[in-house]
Amino acid sequence: MRAKPGLLLFYPAMEHMGGLIADRFDLLKLWKEADPDQAIAERGGGVVAILAAGSEPIGAALMDRLPALKLIVAVGAGYGGVDVPAARARGITVANAGNAHSGDVADHAVGLILGLVQKLCSNDHHVRSGGWVEKGYPRQRRALSAERFGILGLGRIGRAIAERLEPFRGEIAWWGPNQKDVPWQRLESVIALARWCSVLVVAGRGDAGQIVTRDVIEAVGSDGYIVNVARGAVIDEDAMIAALCEGRLAGAGLDVFATEPTPPQRWADVPNVILSPHVAGQTVEAMARLREAAAANLKTALDGGAVLNEILA
Amino acid sequence: MRAKPGLLLFYPAMEHMGGLIADRFDLLKLWKEADPDQAIAERGGGVVAILAAGSEPIGAALMDRLPALKLIVAVGAGYGGVDVPAARARGITVANAGNAHSGDVADHAVGLILGLVQKLCSNDHHVRSGGWVEKGYPRQRRALSAERFGILGLGRIGRAIAERLEPFRGEIAWWGPNQKDVPWQRLESVIALARWCSVLVVAGRGDAGQIVTRDVIEAVGSDGYIVNVARGAVIDEDAMIAALCEGRLAGAGLDVFATEPTPPQRWADVPNVILSPHVAGQTVEAMARLREAAAANLKTALDGGAVLNEILA
Repeated sequence: MRAKPGLLLFYPAMEHMGGLIADRFDLLKLWKEADPDQAIAERGGGVVAILAAGSEPIGAALMDRLPALKLIVAVGAGYGGVDVPAARARGITVANAGNAHSGDVADHAVGLILGLVQKLCSNDHHVRSGGWVEKGYPRQRRALSAERFGILGLGRIGRAIAERLEPFRGEIAWWGPNQKDVPWQRLESVIALARWCSVLVVAGRGDAGQIVTRDVIEAVGSDGYIVNVARGAVIDEDAMIAALCEGRLAGAGLDVFATEPTPPQRWADVPNVILSPHVAGQTVEAMARLREAAAANLKTALDGGAVLNEILA
Repeated sequence: MRAKPGLLLFYPAMEHMGGLIADRFDLLKLWKEADPDQAIAERGGGVVAILAAGSEPIGAALMDRLPALKLIVAVGAGYGGVDVPAARARGITVANAGNAHSGDVADHAVGLILGLVQKLCSNDHHVRSGGWVEKGYPRQRRALSAERFGILGLGRIGRAIAERLEPFRGEIAWWGPNQKDVPWQRLESVIALARWCSVLVVAGRGDAGQIVTRDVIEAVGSDGYIVNVARGAVIDEDAMIAALCEGRLAGAGLDVFATEPTPPQRWADVPNVILSPHVAGQTVEAMARLREAAAANLKTALDGGAVLNEILA
């Protein structure tokens, strides 16, 4: 009996993302290997596909150790860990989940924005701790209609965020590397967007590098909020925490972090932050679509056929 | 020197809502009187206006004790405590703040909806308590696009809520006593709306009585949420708490309560609730508009002129 083709996985969460199709592969579960390097040396030759979260570092060196690799499937929108040019140079196809959950991620970004500006969690604490009874009303908030929303990255997710924010009547502008035919003004740089906005919404690609630098955070300023649903690496997280603690940034709503899971003690004394455990895209409905898309793409590694949502750059 | 005309106030919060115009009145601050009844007997004859939050019971008996009363100004949208027919029968004008903060209240309702469905506060607690590190991801949520939003009361606020929910792609329907020319379907009754929806958003008039009864809460059901930005009296709060504790209602986002401030111990063991201390309309911008509108109306009691936002029914 011939061995099944190999499928490489980095995380337990991936185990069920391939659906029934996973039964047709020999799964190499890297987190279960005492010596992952040794496991790749022994079994890497049979690996024809990788099912990845998208942030795992998958570079030329790893690819060269997987000579039969034909396909890398990222189950979400992000594929920042994948060296796409190196893959293409080796004839390896890279695919992501396309549009499967961009609406849900945008929903979550807007939830974090409203949660922050309207102080949902801190007001809930105010009522529960007896503050309403003993001290009366909390400080009045700024109206959403008075906010200037600066969207950093206007891909599918950024655009969906802008569409959802429209009826709240604030101003909307954005920055991204390429001009687009949209109804919102593109400012000339990240720093210009940060200076202009009162809420900086980070929705760009995870592989863009650390574009929300200390200077960008300072420019958002003591009346401004930062919301991040992209990747933790996009923000200088240490600088952001310092700015929050020193009142140089009004608040932050974060679904992604420099390291995940983020250690809770890192945030214990940081004021005005809503923490979200990287769940923006994790709806029952989106996960079903992601599993379907991943399974359909994995099937092409066995049976041929067209890969969906191929990444070309 | 003639005495100033009297202005009756029930709450400390009202003291600054009249703006500079309040200096031209003799303020009768009922909460400061050891015997409010006696104070009305002694000074009620001079009262020409009431500046009210809107929920204070202002009925025929009180009006009859204030023979010079010409004007009742509610500083918000609600005026459920005022017996408007009794006032009209006595030639007393009733006015509210009109549209001054309906957009902000709608913003807050949507914030509570997203906060609930996306579990913002409980996910924040999950991260802070170490749950993400120790137990991993929380349960996946339902996508907003899968929700059916049932809006109870389609006045200015209800309509503004529907407009804000549109881009989130769920279904929207409503019930109110009168058919309206809007793009959303009107269901035939409150109970039909409750059965149909997955999120019941209560945005109707505070004087509609307790229309969210035990039966309505049961109809929303174990997968359903209730959000209330109207008045606490609209919901059978005891029945709602019982349903939440017994898992017959999935969650609630509440800005208003049967008694305010609501005692925190009432909610200590009630799961999946976001509590908000009646701040939906309390933005810096709206409060400035409300103060202006209240002051302009109070001025008519002294100098004549047209009352804005007169309540006719």
